[in-house]
Amino acid sequence: MTDEHSIFIGGKPFMNYVTAVVMQFTMKGATGVVVKSRGKFISRAVDVVEVARNRFLKDQIDVRNIKIGSEEFVNKEGRNVRVSTLEIALGKK
Amino acid sequence: MTDEHSIFIGGKPFMNYVTAVVMQFTMKGATGVVVKSRGKFISRAVDVVEVARNRFLKDQIDVRNIKIGSEEFVNKEGRNVRVSTLEIALGKK
Repeated sequence: MTDEHSIFIGGKPFMNYVTAVVMQFTMKGATGVVVKSRGKFISRAVDVVEVARNRFLKDQIDVRNIKIGSEEFVNKEGRNVRVSTLEIALGKK
Repeated sequence: MTDEHSIFIGGKPFMNYVTAVVMQFTMKGATGVVVKSRGKFISRAVDVVEVARNRFLKDQIDVRNIKIGSEEFVNKEGRNVRVSTLEIALGKK
């Protein structure tokens, strides 16, 4: 799956992300979309997927795979920081 | 799997939940534990699992299954509210 069909969840208005998922399937001809998130945005990523698949794309898509993980990086104070990640792969039915 | 081996993530101190997961596997003889969460606590549930499996139970447990969903309920103002849910099933290796 190319990056073209990945959506990274951040702090923009909630419906922007829902629309982005819906557009990928309906306008861009995607057969699969991966919704990616990190840290506090993980809860939001689940909300985006649930609203997209229950309200806008009902009976058209399903959840193919869900992965959790961790990323480590060094913050600006020079400390090692761990952040959780969540990826939800959606596919056209 | 019985409810005995389910841990519901809420607003208590973070390490309480990590300890609860670790104890289930090490002291209570569980072969599987389900970490359940709703709404804003979903990000926290992923953190709990990541810390438990990477720091305290390294190479001893793995993620068996992850499910997302929605629950609908009527709030105290009488409105229908949807909340996202996440369940992470962990198993002993």
